[in-house]
Amino acid sequence: MVRLNNDTRDEYANYLLGLIKENELEQFQEDFLQLHPTDQADFYLTLEKEDRQNLYQLITSEEMADVFQALEIEEQKDLITEIDHHYAAEMINHLYADDAADFLAELEQAEALKILTAMNLEDANDVKELMAYPSKTAGAIMTKEFISLTSTQTAQEVIEQLREEAPNAETIYYLYVVDYQQQLVGVVSLRDLITAQSHELVKDLMSPRVVSVASTTDQEEVAQLIKKYDFLAAPVVSPAGILLGIVTVDDVMDVLEDAATEDLGDFTASRGATDVNVTAFKAARLRAPWIVLLMFFGLITAGVIDQFEDTLSQIVLLAAFIPLLMGSAGNAGTQSLAVVVRGLALGTLEKKGLFKTLLREFNTGMMIGLICALALLLIIPIFYGSFILAVIVGISIFCSLSVATVIGAIVPLIINKLKLDPAFASGPFITTVNDILGLLIYFTIATSLLEFL
Amino acid sequence: MVRLNNDTRDEYANYLLGLIKENELEQFQEDFLQLHPTDQADFYLTLEKEDRQNLYQLITSEEMADVFQALEIEEQKDLITEIDHHYAAEMINHLYADDAADFLAELEQAEALKILTAMNLEDANDVKELMAYPSKTAGAIMTKEFISLTSTQTAQEVIEQLREEAPNAETIYYLYVVDYQQQLVGVVSLRDLITAQSHELVKDLMSPRVVSVASTTDQEEVAQLIKKYDFLAAPVVSPAGILLGIVTVDDVMDVLEDAATEDLGDFTASRGATDVNVTAFKAARLRAPWIVLLMFFGLITAGVIDQFEDTLSQIVLLAAFIPLLMGSAGNAGTQSLAVVVRGLALGTLEKKGLFKTLLREFNTGMMIGLICALALLLIIPIFYGSFILAVIVGISIFCSLSVATVIGAIVPLIINKLKLDPAFASGPFITTVNDILGLLIYFTIATSLLEFL
Repeated sequence: MVRLNNDTRDEYANYLLGLIKENELEQFQEDFLQLHPTDQADFYLTLEKEDRQNLYQLITSEEMADVFQALEIEEQKDLITEIDHHYAAEMINHLYADDAADFLAELEQAEALKILTAMNLEDANDVKELMAYPSKTAGAIMTKEFISLTSTQTAQEVIEQLREEAPNAETIYYLYVVDYQQQLVGVVSLRDLITAQSHELVKDLMSPRVVSVASTTDQEEVAQLIKKYDFLAAPVVSPAGILLGIVTVDDVMDVLEDAATEDLGDFTASRGATDVNVTAFKAARLRAPWIVLLMFFGLITAGVIDQFEDTLSQIVLLAAFIPLLMGSAGNAGTQSLAVVVRGLALGTLEKKGLFKTLLREFNTGMMIGLICALALLLIIPIFYGSFILAVIVGISIFCSLSVATVIGAIVPLIINKLKLDPAFASGPFITTVNDILGLLIYFTIATSLLEFL
Repeated sequence: MVRLNNDTRDEYANYLLGLIKENELEQFQEDFLQLHPTDQADFYLTLEKEDRQNLYQLITSEEMADVFQALEIEEQKDLITEIDHHYAAEMINHLYADDAADFLAELEQAEALKILTAMNLEDANDVKELMAYPSKTAGAIMTKEFISLTSTQTAQEVIEQLREEAPNAETIYYLYVVDYQQQLVGVVSLRDLITAQSHELVKDLMSPRVVSVASTTDQEEVAQLIKKYDFLAAPVVSPAGILLGIVTVDDVMDVLEDAATEDLGDFTASRGATDVNVTAFKAARLRAPWIVLLMFFGLITAGVIDQFEDTLSQIVLLAAFIPLLMGSAGNAGTQSLAVVVRGLALGTLEKKGLFKTLLREFNTGMMIGLICALALLLIIPIFYGSFILAVIVGISIFCSLSVATVIGAIVPLIINKLKLDPAFASGPFITTVNDILGLLIYFTIATSLLEFL
């Protein structure tokens, strides 16, 4: 297998393309198949449709399965349509069951069923089983291609078994031990096996208490478990302890990456809409609902300000500090939100305790508010010549920052406790709530101090 | 090695603690050492200081090294102070070089030197070498404990070598092949080795073109590479191609997690300040600079509004829509920022092209702006009885959303091109820029349409 450096990758792609253009197909076939599947897929994506059709002639459906596996789901969906139906079914037969299930789940049901029917029965059953698990659970991301042992095998027997089964297994580095009922009873690493004597029994080499997850466990929880223990894989078991499949570290890295994308989406009102590869129209369709929804909340702030029109008309300059107050409260609230969301994700918050966290955020908010208030008490009189205005803005920023940190911390905690959709804990929603509270504080203080102006 | 389920972990910890309290130290020793180091560390952290001192008597410095390795750096720093100096140096001798380097880099220089001097010479040199690499590079996160082969060894000879070296290597699943000058010439996986015949030569089994990284490569780039290829490790080489160390997948998961924390910090003005385990005072000290800095930018918005005091005093109701306009422009800009930051992180943006991305964001912004404008043209006349006010706010939201998406996309692209600190591309900064532009647009339009009101 030829693997490429960053420097040589483009060069090599040009060389391969040249081989196709000059019809040196045998040489192309040989060189292409030596590439790592990830590089094969990258190259495949640079081809014109006509050249892709040539490629399908040159490589077997099994070799194409490796390429297909390395593509993104969206790319897979686009490209499957141009592949000959029979060749496609053969190719999907050769995918790992979890990859096949992920792909088929994205197709129209009729289309998926057509492919499943064309597949061989055993593979199709594995795929159907995986497709039945709710998405984003351990069951949905696990693979069926694992190696299982019995506790009475010797190290030597296992090595021989590996020689045969390795080509079809997703990992051979963790081997799971089951009893006659297929219940998981232990784990042995290939590392332990290599260092063992050839006559030693699996039952003496294995660790009898394995960390396992249920098929219903949330995929992020599986990811955190594998990350915490530095595992390369984790076994998935049924309620009766029967070994159903394994989740490997490479799948888990994708889960962590997706979780980060989701978190970011929540903080930026763009959940599910951060893909650069969609048209402006589709991007607008995905993103507009957030903006419009938040704009309607903005109408509430307009209503609040409208209530204080008398106060505002007496001292128009009050309007000048609306953005400053709103911005500061928004930023302080979002900071608290980030602290709590991160603490929940990493599990550090549970150790700390919820009430202590809230109290800390409140104290932090008061301290930051005090600093801001003092700064404004110095600056506003200089630029705007009004000490009372400075007092109004100063007290307002102190109060609204103290409140904003608590709101920023308490909302995600409640959402988390009640297991509601965390989108409601997203940055923009909390900012909007803090806007409304901040404006009420500001204008209430301003109205009551109006006589001093 | 006993591993625990989530359900039984607390129960088992209580059992272990009971053994200490009842002074059944031999039984404790036996049971404790059967735990996975991650669980050992979790248990260790629940102990009182007195019990921890007992623990140091019961387990060797080598066994303690496993526990220590599983702790967070902050925890390591707290706990090292209570450990006997001689025992501590012994323990650090037994750490993997990369973990020892990470830990010592966090200590005061004098303290670190004292420990390095007490360590054995060879280990200390490895650690010093790692400490010399700039932080957040491949060199800084790589481990020196890898297994290297020569191309003339047979599969059988390699297996025998593994039996000896496995206990000291961080991974034995990828084996790197070097020539007589220690230059990296290939890689062979344990999987390939297991399935090979025992007399086959490494040079016939290895992949000759290995993906490698330079010691100066950014750690996030290494992480993305490992993730892209589903590797379990990647080799780090000098400019002359000499194998220096390897980066393993478990280190890379921590890098991805840290990167996600950093990204979130950038979006929430809380970079480096999302730790829940610090006092309110320290949290305020870390977070206040962001809030105060952004508040000073807020003073610019106050200045902008102040310039339009005449317009405002003629129609006070204009102030009511400041939050709505600012909020919408802020949200639209942050969405674009999220799209671009995510695209840069995942590498999807480079394929798409910068100009096309900007154009798409501009088009998206115009479409969302149009929807918002139409909604406001319907709603504002109903609630506030003024069609001209609706026109002013509507045109303003259309213009400022179109601009905001472009600003949100272009700033991180410029930052990325110029390799500046991405903190300046953070959400709050972009929101502040969009606030100022949005207010200028709003009041300019309002002033020019004033005569119609």
